[in-house]
Amino acid sequence: MSGLKILALESSAVSAGAAVSVDGKIVAENFVNAGLTHSQTLLPMVEACLKTANRTVQDVDAVAIANGPGSFTGIRIGVAAVKGICFGGKKCIGVSTLEAMAYNLLGADCIALCVMDARCSQVYTAVFDCGEKVTRLCEDKAVMISDLPEMIENAKKDIKKDVIILGDGAELCYNYLKTVCNGVFLAPVTVRYQRAAGVALAAEYAGELIEADALKPVYLRVPQAERELKKRSENQ
Amino acid sequence: MSGLKILALESSAVSAGAAVSVDGKIVAENFVNAGLTHSQTLLPMVEACLKTANRTVQDVDAVAIANGPGSFTGIRIGVAAVKGICFGGKKCIGVSTLEAMAYNLLGADCIALCVMDARCSQVYTAVFDCGEKVTRLCEDKAVMISDLPEMIENAKKDIKKDVIILGDGAELCYNYLKTVCNGVFLAPVTVRYQRAAGVALAAEYAGELIEADALKPVYLRVPQAERELKKRSENQ
Repeated sequence: MSGLKILALESSAVSAGAAVSVDGKIVAENFVNAGLTHSQTLLPMVEACLKTANRTVQDVDAVAIANGPGSFTGIRIGVAAVKGICFGGKKCIGVSTLEAMAYNLLGADCIALCVMDARCSQVYTAVFDCGEKVTRLCEDKAVMISDLPEMIENAKKDIKKDVIILGDGAELCYNYLKTVCNGVFLAPVTVRYQRAAGVALAAEYAGELIEADALKPVYLRVPQAERELKKRSENQ
Repeated sequence: MSGLKILALESSAVSAGAAVSVDGKIVAENFVNAGLTHSQTLLPMVEACLKTANRTVQDVDAVAIANGPGSFTGIRIGVAAVKGICFGGKKCIGVSTLEAMAYNLLGADCIALCVMDARCSQVYTAVFDCGEKVTRLCEDKAVMISDLPEMIENAKKDIKKDVIILGDGAELCYNYLKTVCNGVFLAPVTVRYQRAAGVALAAEYAGELIEADALKPVYLRVPQAERELKKRSENQ
Protein backbone atom coordinates (compact mmCIF):
# COMPACT_ATOMS: atom_id res chain seq x y z
CA MET A 1 0.00 0.00 0.00
CA SER A 2 1.07 3.59 -0.32
CA GLY A 3 -0.34 7.11 -0.20
CA LEU A 4 -1.99 6.50 3.17
CA LYS A 5 -2.57 8.46 6.34
CA ILE A 6 -1.35 6.09 9.02
CA LEU A 7 -1.43 6.07 12.80
CA ALA A 8 1.35 3.73 13.98
CA LEU A 9 1.89 2.20 17.42
CA GLU A 10 4.99 0.49 18.79
CA SER A 11 4.96 -1.46 22.07
CA SER A 12 7.11 -4.51 21.35
CA ALA A 13 9.81 -3.62 23.92
CA VAL A 14 10.16 -1.56 27.13
CA SER A 15 9.88 1.69 25.15
CA ALA A 16 6.62 2.72 23.50
CA GLY A 17 5.79 5.02 20.63
CA ALA A 18 3.13 6.49 18.40
CA ALA A 19 3.52 8.19 15.01
CA VAL A 20 1.36 9.71 12.32
CA SER A 21 2.50 9.56 8.69
CA VAL A 22 1.03 11.01 5.52
CA ASP A 23 2.24 9.57 2.17
CA GLY A 24 5.31 8.13 3.90
CA LYS A 25 6.27 11.40 5.61
CA ILE A 26 6.32 11.42 9.42
CA VAL A 27 4.22 14.39 10.57
CA ALA A 28 4.32 13.56 14.30
CA GLU A 29 6.08 11.06 16.53
CA ASN A 30 6.00 10.47 20.28
CA PHE A 31 8.41 8.16 22.09
CA VAL A 32 8.73 7.18 25.73
CA ASN A 33 11.12 4.98 27.67
CA ALA A 34 10.49 6.16 31.21
CA GLY A 35 9.94 2.86 33.00
CA LEU A 36 6.15 3.07 32.90
CA THR A 37 3.97 0.20 31.66
CA HIS A 38 2.44 0.27 28.17
CA SER A 39 -1.03 0.08 29.69
CA GLN A 40 -0.30 3.46 31.34
CA THR A 41 1.48 5.18 28.47
CA LEU A 42 0.31 3.85 25.11
CA LEU A 43 -3.19 5.28 24.62
CA PRO A 44 -2.49 8.72 26.20
CA MET A 45 0.52 8.89 23.88
CA VAL A 46 -1.59 8.02 20.83
CA GLU A 47 -4.00 10.79 21.81
CA ALA A 48 -1.17 13.31 22.30
CA CYS A 49 0.46 12.33 19.00
CA LEU A 50 -2.76 12.77 17.01
CA LYS A 51 -3.37 16.11 18.73
CA THR A 52 0.14 17.37 17.86
CA ALA A 53 -0.42 16.27 14.27
CA ASN A 54 -3.70 18.22 14.34
CA ARG A 55 -5.60 15.05 13.38
CA THR A 56 -8.16 12.65 14.82
CA VAL A 57 -8.48 8.87 14.52
CA GLN A 58 -11.24 9.48 11.98
CA ASP A 59 -8.70 11.20 9.70
CA VAL A 60 -6.38 8.21 9.33
CA ASP A 61 -6.83 5.44 6.75
CA ALA A 62 -5.33 2.70 8.88
CA VAL A 63 -3.75 1.91 12.25
CA ALA A 64 -0.42 0.08 12.08
CA ILE A 65 1.35 -1.95 14.73
CA ALA A 66 4.56 -3.95 15.05
CA ASN A 67 2.87 -7.25 15.90
CA GLY A 68 5.97 -9.34 16.57
CA PRO A 69 8.41 -10.65 17.36
CA GLY A 70 8.88 -8.92 20.72
CA SER A 71 7.85 -8.91 24.35
CA PHE A 72 4.81 -11.20 24.64
CA THR A 73 2.96 -8.76 26.88
CA GLY A 74 4.01 -5.68 24.88
CA ILE A 75 2.83 -7.17 21.61
CA ARG A 76 -0.48 -8.26 23.16
CA ILE A 77 -1.13 -4.79 24.59
CA GLY A 78 -0.31 -3.18 21.23
CA VAL A 79 -2.49 -5.55 19.21
CA ALA A 80 -5.38 -5.16 21.69
CA ALA A 81 -5.06 -1.36 21.57
CA VAL A 82 -5.16 -1.38 17.76
CA LYS A 83 -8.21 -3.66 17.73
CA GLY A 84 -9.86 -1.21 20.11
CA ILE A 85 -9.00 1.87 18.05
CA CYS A 86 -10.20 0.12 14.86
CA PHE A 87 -13.47 -1.05 16.45
CA GLY A 88 -16.28 -0.09 14.11
CA GLY A 89 -14.54 -0.98 10.88
CA LYS A 90 -11.23 0.90 10.49
CA LYS A 91 -8.55 -1.14 8.71
CA CYS A 92 -5.24 -2.04 10.32
CA ILE A 93 -1.77 -3.11 9.21
CA GLY A 94 0.43 -5.55 11.12
CA VAL A 95 4.14 -5.24 10.33
CA SER A 96 7.12 -7.28 11.47
CA THR A 97 8.97 -5.63 14.36
CA LEU A 98 12.23 -6.46 12.55
CA GLU A 99 11.09 -4.94 9.26
CA ALA A 100 9.85 -1.80 11.04
CA MET A 101 13.28 -1.44 12.61
CA ALA A 102 14.97 -1.70 9.19
CA TYR A 103 12.86 1.28 8.08
CA ASN A 104 14.69 3.32 10.77
CA LEU A 105 17.53 3.23 8.20
CA LEU A 106 15.46 4.17 5.12
CA GLY A 107 17.53 6.47 2.93
CA ALA A 108 20.88 5.19 4.22
CA ASP A 109 22.90 2.97 1.88
CA CYS A 110 23.51 -0.26 3.82
CA ILE A 111 22.50 -3.79 4.65
CA ALA A 112 20.36 -3.69 7.83
CA LEU A 113 20.82 -6.65 10.16
CA CYS A 114 17.98 -6.52 12.69
CA VAL A 115 18.52 -8.63 15.80
CA MET A 116 16.33 -9.01 18.87
CA ASP A 117 17.75 -10.91 21.85
CA ALA A 118 15.80 -14.18 22.19
CA ARG A 119 18.03 -15.47 25.07
CA CYS A 120 19.94 -18.80 25.06
CA SER A 121 22.44 -17.40 22.45
CA GLN A 122 19.58 -17.00 19.99
CA VAL A 123 18.25 -13.92 18.21
CA TYR A 124 15.14 -13.13 16.19
CA THR A 125 16.60 -11.74 13.00
CA ALA A 126 16.05 -10.66 9.41
CA VAL A 127 18.23 -8.90 6.83
CA PHE A 128 17.22 -5.98 4.60
CA ASP A 129 18.79 -4.04 1.73
CA CYS A 130 18.40 -0.33 2.58
CA GLY A 131 18.62 2.59 0.20
CA GLU A 132 15.87 4.76 -1.22
CA LYS A 133 13.71 1.67 -0.60
CA VAL A 134 13.96 -1.13 1.96
CA THR A 135 14.01 -4.63 0.45
CA ARG A 136 13.62 -7.74 2.57
CA LEU A 137 16.39 -10.31 1.94
CA CYS A 138 15.13 -13.14 4.19
CA GLU A 139 12.18 -14.10 6.37
CA ASP A 140 12.04 -13.33 10.10
CA LYS A 141 13.53 -16.27 11.98
CA ALA A 142 15.07 -17.37 15.27
CA VAL A 143 18.72 -18.40 14.79
CA MET A 144 21.85 -19.00 16.88
CA ILE A 145 24.12 -15.93 17.02
CA SER A 146 26.85 -18.15 15.56
CA ASP A 147 24.71 -18.50 12.38
CA LEU A 148 24.83 -14.75 11.66
CA PRO A 149 28.21 -14.59 9.85
CA GLU A 150 26.90 -16.96 7.15
CA MET A 151 23.72 -14.87 6.77
CA ILE A 152 25.84 -11.74 6.39
CA GLU A 153 28.13 -13.44 3.87
CA ASN A 154 25.12 -14.48 1.78
CA ALA A 155 23.70 -10.96 1.78
CA LYS A 156 27.08 -9.43 0.89
CA LYS A 157 27.54 -11.78 -2.08
CA ASP A 158 25.03 -9.75 -4.09
CA ILE A 159 25.05 -6.42 -2.27
CA LYS A 160 28.31 -4.59 -1.75
CA LYS A 161 27.32 -2.48 1.23
CA ASP A 162 28.34 -2.22 4.88
CA VAL A 163 26.18 -3.99 7.46
CA ILE A 164 24.48 -1.85 10.10
CA ILE A 165 23.16 -3.71 13.16
CA LEU A 166 19.94 -2.68 14.93
CA GLY A 167 17.79 -4.00 17.75
CA ASP A 168 18.15 -4.87 21.42
CA GLY A 169 20.56 -7.62 20.40
CA ALA A 170 22.75 -5.17 18.43
CA GLU A 171 25.57 -4.70 20.97
CA LEU A 172 25.68 -8.44 21.78
CA CYS A 173 25.91 -9.43 18.11
CA TYR A 174 28.27 -6.58 17.18
CA ASN A 175 30.79 -7.62 19.84
CA TYR A 176 30.85 -11.11 18.32
CA LEU A 177 30.56 -10.16 14.64
CA LYS A 178 33.33 -7.53 14.63
CA THR A 179 35.78 -10.32 15.51
CA VAL A 180 34.77 -12.45 12.52
CA CYS A 181 33.38 -10.09 9.82
CA ASN A 182 34.54 -6.87 8.13
CA GLY A 183 32.32 -3.88 7.48
CA VAL A 184 29.85 -4.34 10.35
CA PHE A 185 28.77 -1.32 12.38
CA LEU A 186 26.26 -0.37 15.06
CA ALA A 187 23.31 1.87 14.13
CA PRO A 188 23.17 5.32 15.79
CA VAL A 189 21.60 4.97 19.26
CA THR A 190 18.79 7.35 18.26
CA VAL A 191 17.46 4.77 15.75
CA ARG A 192 19.04 1.54 17.06
CA TYR A 193 15.82 0.29 18.66
CA GLN A 194 12.10 0.10 17.85
CA ARG A 195 10.45 3.38 16.80
CA ALA A 196 6.86 4.07 15.79
CA ALA A 197 8.20 6.06 12.81
CA GLY A 198 9.68 2.82 11.45
CA VAL A 199 6.34 1.06 11.92
CA ALA A 200 4.56 3.84 9.98
CA LEU A 201 7.09 3.67 7.12
CA ALA A 202 7.03 -0.14 6.95
CA ALA A 203 3.21 -0.03 6.88
CA GLU A 204 3.25 2.59 4.12
CA TYR A 205 5.76 0.83 1.88
CA ALA A 206 5.37 -2.87 2.71
CA GLY A 207 2.12 -3.24 4.64
CA GLU A 208 -1.19 -4.83 3.78
CA LEU A 209 -4.56 -3.47 4.91
CA ILE A 210 -6.50 -6.10 6.87
CA GLU A 211 -9.60 -6.23 9.04
CA ALA A 212 -8.88 -5.70 12.74
CA ASP A 213 -10.33 -9.17 13.43
CA ALA A 214 -7.56 -10.73 11.39
CA LEU A 215 -4.73 -8.94 13.28
CA LYS A 216 -2.78 -11.38 15.45
CA PRO A 217 0.43 -11.36 17.47
CA VAL A 218 3.27 -13.05 15.58
CA TYR A 219 5.60 -14.99 17.87
CA LEU A 220 8.51 -16.78 16.26
CA ARG A 221 8.66 -19.18 19.18
CA VAL A 222 5.98 -20.67 21.41
CA PRO A 223 5.63 -18.55 24.61
CA GLN A 224 7.59 -19.87 27.60
CA ALA A 225 4.38 -20.53 29.58
CA GLU A 226 3.04 -22.75 26.78
CA ARG A 227 6.38 -24.53 26.38
CA GLU A 228 6.39 -25.34 30.10
CA LEU A 229 2.78 -26.48 30.01
CA LYS A 230 3.60 -28.81 27.11
CA LYS A 231 6.66 -30.14 28.93
CA ARG A 232 4.61 -30.78 32.05
CA SER A 233 1.83 -32.57 30.18
CA GLU A 234 4.42 -34.74 28.37
CA ASN A 235 5.98 -35.70 31.69
CA GLN A 236 2.68 -36.82 33.16
CA MET B 1 28.24 18.81 31.78
CA SER B 2 26.91 15.34 32.31
CA GLY B 3 24.59 13.41 34.60
CA LEU B 4 21.76 15.92 34.09
CA LYS B 5 18.01 15.76 33.69
CA ILE B 6 17.45 17.87 30.58
CA LEU B 7 14.38 19.22 28.81
CA ALA B 8 15.41 19.95 25.20
CA LEU B 9 13.59 22.02 22.57
CA GLU B 10 14.19 22.16 18.83
CA SER B 11 12.59 24.81 16.62
CA SER B 12 15.34 25.78 14.19
CA ALA B 13 13.49 24.53 11.07
CA VAL B 14 9.90 23.85 9.94
CA SER B 15 9.68 20.82 12.23
CA ALA B 16 9.63 21.18 16.01
CA GLY B 17 10.50 18.87 18.85
CA ALA B 18 10.83 18.37 22.57
CA ALA B 19 12.76 15.71 24.47
CA VAL B 20 13.55 14.75 28.04
CA SER B 21 16.85 13.03 28.82
CA VAL B 22 18.26 11.62 32.05
CA ASP B 23 22.03 10.96 32.21
CA GLY B 24 22.21 11.01 28.40
CA LYS B 25 19.33 8.55 27.91
CA ILE B 26 16.26 9.80 26.03
CA VAL B 27 13.21 9.01 28.18
CA ALA B 28 10.69 10.86 26.01
CA GLU B 29 10.67 12.63 22.66
CA ASN B 30 7.94 14.40 20.70
CA PHE B 31 8.33 15.52 17.09
CA VAL B 32 6.00 17.37 14.74
CA ASN B 33 6.22 18.46 11.13
CA ALA B 34 2.57 19.08 10.33
CA GLY B 35 2.73 22.55 8.76
CA LEU B 36 1.74 24.37 11.96
CA THR B 37 3.72 27.32 13.33
CA HIS B 38 6.09 26.89 16.28
CA SER B 39 4.07 29.40 18.28
CA GLN B 40 1.14 26.95 18.04
CA THR B 41 2.99 23.68 18.58
CA LEU B 42 6.10 24.21 20.70
CA LEU B 43 4.82 24.80 24.24
CA PRO B 44 1.91 22.29 24.09
CA MET B 45 4.47 19.78 22.84
CA VAL B 46 6.84 20.54 25.71
CA GLU B 47 3.95 20.00 28.12
CA ALA B 48 2.94 16.70 26.46
CA CYS B 49 6.54 15.47 26.41
CA LEU B 50 7.09 16.17 30.13
CA LYS B 51 3.77 14.48 30.91
CA THR B 52 4.70 11.35 28.94
CA ALA B 53 8.03 11.29 30.77
CA ASN B 54 6.08 11.54 34.04
CA ARG B 55 8.06 14.67 34.94
CA THR B 56 7.51 18.39 35.49
CA VAL B 57 9.67 21.39 34.60
CA GLN B 58 10.69 21.53 38.28
CA ASP B 59 12.26 18.07 37.92
CA VAL B 60 14.77 19.02 35.21
CA ASP B 61 18.20 20.53 35.89
CA ALA B 62 18.32 22.57 32.71
CA VAL B 63 16.45 23.50 29.54
CA ALA B 64 18.42 23.07 26.30
CA ILE B 65 17.82 24.62 22.90
CA ALA B 66 19.47 24.56 19.48
CA ASN B 67 20.10 28.31 19.31
CA GLY B 68 21.45 28.49 15.78
CA PRO B 69 22.16 28.49 12.96
CA GLY B 70 18.66 28.04 11.56
CA SER B 71 15.47 29.84 10.63
CA PHE B 72 15.67 33.32 12.16
CA THR B 73 12.08 33.17 13.40
CA GLY B 74 12.32 29.56 14.57
CA ILE B 75 15.45 30.23 16.60
CA ARG B 76 13.94 33.35 18.14
CA ILE B 77 10.76 31.50 19.16
CA GLY B 78 12.81 28.67 20.68
CA VAL B 79 15.13 30.99 22.60
CA ALA B 80 12.18 33.05 23.85
CA ALA B 81 10.33 29.91 24.97
CA VAL B 82 13.38 28.67 26.88
CA LYS B 83 13.85 32.06 28.57
CA GLY B 84 10.18 31.84 29.59
CA ILE B 85 10.44 28.29 30.94
CA CYS B 86 13.63 29.20 32.86
CA PHE B 87 12.11 32.38 34.33
CA GLY B 88 12.76 32.34 38.05
CA GLY B 89 16.27 30.99 37.92
CA LYS B 90 16.46 27.65 36.07
CA LYS B 91 19.68 27.21 34.08
CA CYS B 92 19.72 26.69 30.34
CA ILE B 93 22.07 25.29 27.69
CA GLY B 94 22.41 26.66 24.16
CA VAL B 95 23.84 24.17 21.66
CA SER B 96 24.79 24.56 18.02
CA THR B 97 22.06 23.27 15.69
CA LEU B 98 24.81 21.57 13.65
CA GLU B 99 26.36 19.88 16.69
CA ALA B 100 22.93 18.72 17.91
CA MET B 101 22.36 17.15 14.49
CA ALA B 102 25.68 15.28 14.69
CA TYR B 103 24.44 13.71 17.95
CA ASN B 104 21.67 12.08 15.87
CA LEU B 105 24.52 9.76 14.78
CA LEU B 106 25.95 9.10 18.27
CA GLY B 107 27.05 5.46 18.45
CA ALA B 108 27.53 5.10 14.68
CA ASP B 109 31.13 4.95 13.42
CA CYS B 110 31.45 7.77 10.90
CA ILE B 111 32.40 11.34 10.10
CA ALA B 112 29.23 13.48 10.34
CA LEU B 113 29.05 16.32 7.82
CA CYS B 114 26.19 18.60 8.93
CA VAL B 115 24.95 21.01 6.27
CA MET B 116 22.12 23.52 6.40
CA ASP B 117 21.11 25.26 3.20
CA ALA B 118 22.07 28.94 3.46
CA ARG B 119 21.01 29.76 -0.16
CA CYS B 120 23.30 31.29 -2.83
CA SER B 121 25.30 27.98 -3.11
CA GLN B 122 26.33 28.36 0.54
CA VAL B 123 25.77 26.07 3.52
CA TYR B 124 26.18 26.43 7.26
CA THR B 125 28.39 23.49 8.10
CA ALA B 126 30.56 21.71 10.65
CA VAL B 127 32.26 18.31 10.75
CA PHE B 128 32.25 15.83 13.64
CA ASP B 129 33.92 12.51 14.43
CA CYS B 130 31.16 10.14 15.59
CA GLY B 131 31.58 6.95 17.56
CA GLU B 132 30.85 6.24 21.21
CA LYS B 133 31.44 9.99 21.58
CA VAL B 134 30.93 12.91 19.21
CA THR B 135 34.03 15.06 18.69
CA ARG B 136 33.89 18.41 16.92
CA LEU B 137 36.49 18.72 14.11
CA CYS B 138 35.85 22.35 13.09
CA GLU B 139 33.85 25.39 14.09
CA ASP B 140 30.39 26.15 12.67
CA LYS B 141 30.83 28.26 9.53
CA ALA B 142 29.17 29.43 6.32
CA VAL B 143 31.03 28.11 3.25
CA MET B 144 30.50 27.63 -0.47
CA ILE B 145 29.33 24.09 -1.33
CA SER B 146 32.40 23.87 -3.57
CA ASP B 147 34.59 24.19 -0.43
CA LEU B 148 33.19 20.98 1.09
CA PRO B 149 35.46 18.45 -0.70
CA GLU B 150 38.56 20.05 0.86
CA MET B 151 36.93 19.99 4.31
CA ILE B 152 36.12 16.30 3.86
CA GLU B 153 39.63 15.53 2.65
CA ASN B 154 41.10 17.23 5.74
CA ALA B 155 38.85 15.25 8.08
CA LYS B 156 39.62 11.96 6.31
CA LYS B 157 43.39 12.53 6.57
CA ASP B 158 43.27 11.62 10.26
CA ILE B 159 40.04 9.65 10.51
CA LYS B 160 39.50 6.67 8.24
CA LYS B 161 35.70 6.59 8.31
CA ASP B 162 32.87 7.10 5.83
CA VAL B 163 31.19 10.50 5.70
CA ILE B 164 27.47 10.64 6.54
CA ILE B 165 25.67 13.82 5.49
CA LEU B 166 22.87 15.35 7.58
CA GLY B 167 20.74 18.48 7.47
CA ASP B 168 18.34 20.22 5.13
CA GLY B 169 21.26 20.72 2.72
CA ALA B 170 22.10 16.98 2.75
CA GLU B 171 20.54 15.97 -0.58
CA LEU B 172 21.90 19.09 -2.34
CA CYS B 173 25.45 18.48 -1.08
CA TYR B 174 25.29 14.71 -1.56
CA ASN B 175 24.36 15.08 -5.24
CA TYR B 176 27.46 17.22 -5.76
CA LEU B 177 29.84 15.40 -3.39
CA LYS B 178 29.14 11.89 -4.74
CA THR B 179 30.56 13.03 -8.08
CA VAL B 180 33.87 14.19 -6.55
CA CYS B 181 34.41 12.17 -3.31
CA ASN B 182 34.35 8.49 -2.34
CA GLY B 183 32.69 7.14 0.78
CA VAL B 184 29.99 9.80 1.23
CA PHE B 185 26.47 8.73 2.17
CA LEU B 186 23.16 10.24 3.21
CA ALA B 187 21.96 9.75 6.80
CA PRO B 188 18.75 7.73 7.27
CA VAL B 189 15.73 10.01 6.75
CA THR B 190 14.54 9.34 10.32
CA VAL B 191 17.59 11.19 11.71
CA ARG B 192 18.66 13.29 8.72
CA TYR B 193 17.21 16.52 10.10
CA GLN B 194 17.01 18.36 13.43
CA ARG B 195 15.67 16.36 16.39
CA ALA B 196 15.19 17.38 20.01
CA ALA B 197 16.87 14.10 21.04
CA GLY B 198 20.08 15.38 19.40
CA VAL B 199 19.77 18.67 21.27
CA ALA B 200 19.40 16.80 24.58
CA LEU B 201 22.44 14.61 23.88
CA ALA B 202 24.61 17.54 22.70
CA ALA B 203 23.61 19.47 25.86
CA GLU B 204 24.44 16.47 28.07
CA TYR B 205 27.84 15.74 26.52
CA ALA B 206 29.05 19.09 25.19
CA GLY B 207 26.84 21.77 26.73
CA GLU B 208 27.53 24.46 29.28
CA LEU B 209 25.01 25.58 31.90
CA ILE B 210 24.33 29.32 31.62
CA GLU B 211 21.84 31.81 33.03
CA ALA B 212 18.77 32.28 30.83
CA ASP B 213 19.68 35.98 30.49
CA ALA B 214 22.88 35.01 28.70
CA LEU B 215 21.14 32.78 26.12
CA LYS B 216 21.22 34.36 22.67
CA PRO B 217 20.39 33.32 19.11
CA VAL B 218 23.54 32.49 17.15
CA TYR B 219 23.34 33.49 13.50
CA LEU B 220 26.35 32.81 11.34
CA ARG B 221 25.31 35.58 8.96
CA VAL B 222 23.62 38.91 9.53
CA PRO B 223 19.82 38.56 9.00
CA GLN B 224 18.62 39.51 5.50
CA ALA B 225 16.56 42.42 6.87
CA GLU B 226 19.64 43.91 8.53
CA ARG B 227 21.76 43.34 5.43
CA GLU B 228 19.19 45.21 3.33
CA LEU B 229 18.94 48.00 5.88
CA LYS B 230 22.72 48.36 5.80
CA LYS B 231 22.75 48.35 2.00
CA ARG B 232 20.04 51.00 1.88
CA SER B 233 21.76 53.23 4.42
CA GLU B 234 25.03 52.92 2.46
CA ASN B 235 23.25 53.93 -0.75
CA GLN B 236 21.78 57.05 0.82
